[in-house]
Amino acid sequence: MTTDPWSLPPGQGRDAVVLLSGGLDSATALAMATAAGYRCHALSFDYRQRHAVELEAAALIAAAGRATSHRVIRLDADAFAGSALTDLDVAVPETESEGIPVTYVPARNTIFLAYALGCAEVLGASDLVIGVNAVDYSGYPDCRPEFVRAFEAMANLATRSAVEGAPLRVHAPLIELTKADIIRAGTTLGVDYGLTVSCYQPDKEGRACGRCDSCRFRAAGFAAAGVTDPTRYQP
Amino acid sequence: MTTDPWSLPPGQGRDAVVLLSGGLDSATALAMATAAGYRCHALSFDYRQRHAVELEAAALIAAAGRATSHRVIRLDADAFAGSALTDLDVAVPETESEGIPVTYVPARNTIFLAYALGCAEVLGASDLVIGVNAVDYSGYPDCRPEFVRAFEAMANLATRSAVEGAPLRVHAPLIELTKADIIRAGTTLGVDYGLTVSCYQPDKEGRACGRCDSCRFRAAGFAAAGVTDPTRYQP
Repeated sequence: MTTDPWSLPPGQGRDAVVLLSGGLDSATALAMATAAGYRCHALSFDYRQRHAVELEAAALIAAAGRATSHRVIRLDADAFAGSALTDLDVAVPETESEGIPVTYVPARNTIFLAYALGCAEVLGASDLVIGVNAVDYSGYPDCRPEFVRAFEAMANLATRSAVEGAPLRVHAPLIELTKADIIRAGTTLGVDYGLTVSCYQPDKEGRACGRCDSCRFRAAGFAAAGVTDPTRYQP
Repeated sequence: MTTDPWSLPPGQGRDAVVLLSGGLDSATALAMATAAGYRCHALSFDYRQRHAVELEAAALIAAAGRATSHRVIRLDADAFAGSALTDLDVAVPETESEGIPVTYVPARNTIFLAYALGCAEVLGASDLVIGVNAVDYSGYPDCRPEFVRAFEAMANLATRSAVEGAPLRVHAPLIELTKADIIRAGTTLGVDYGLTVSCYQPDKEGRACGRCDSCRFRAAGFAAAGVTDPTRYQP
């Protein structure tokens, strides 16, 4: 019996919409949802990302993770001005910074979950899965447990499903795990982390810089988990 | 002193993001926000609508309503399958129906407000304005007061603004007004309702069918308000 309130309950063949970025965390969340018995509909977003390799990775991860479907939704990039992840004029930081990093994309998880909610209603799914976690939080307000619970509460007032009966659940199974916990759990489930891209500034072949916040968290996670790091780094 | 908890507080030159559909309600909400002293940034959405005339109307209304800016965000239509408003294979109903109408678009206001939240953060605005109301509710779960309050609560946990201080407010100044109340208020504020399009199935010149739910609500509203209906109807 688990004592983690965020662990995924059994899916029993129910449909779930799983946000899939191409990174390590969401790949693990997908593997957990598949293992728990959900029919997983993976959802990725194409915005003015620095790295299209992320989306290529997401497609490979969806297939490897036995997702029932994988849909890529294009987002209008104008809504995302002013972040280092989408605006080439803002430098990606290579040292740890105080407060909210410039890699923060305004309202990103709110928008992603809003689309997931729409897809869930179309598909008849009442479960959403998002791979946010406290370590990866790193100053992003929309990765916190209280945000996830507030989104779930709002979603249950927003949709036909909520009005007509089946409550909607937002699962964030990684939210209280360390990066090492995540990597250990995913390794047990057979996740091929060699497919995943975490770097904020990979090269065209998907190789990581090894210097950005995300690369540092990832490398430290593999080291702490005692798992060989399959990341391909730039020369 | 007002006793309506939904009436707009004074804007005092603050920036607000105002959702603008091209319809009667959001045109009135914009006029109210401008009159209350907000600098209004109008936001419209281009999805697989049956009527592009809605967006042309929104542009005219934004200009007439003295919006500081007007942005149109393109939405990926795939997320909106299965509704009469976006799917030409589903017939628009011409008689009143029980429950949630098929013109309901899954998670629409959640997605619209999520984008508005992102724009608000980029603009440094802490006020969102949405023209939903109880009469126009007509079975749409995401037009209810409890939805608006839940979105506001979630938004205050989702963004940099929330974390760093200024609380975000979601205003729905029409939510407890009847259609006649809205039309009377807008008329007092000088709204040109001849610019607005409410019909679910207008022709290419923007003329209304006079038969759909939205046309019926609108016509009844002008009659009840004792205001001459400027709507152009199809011959």
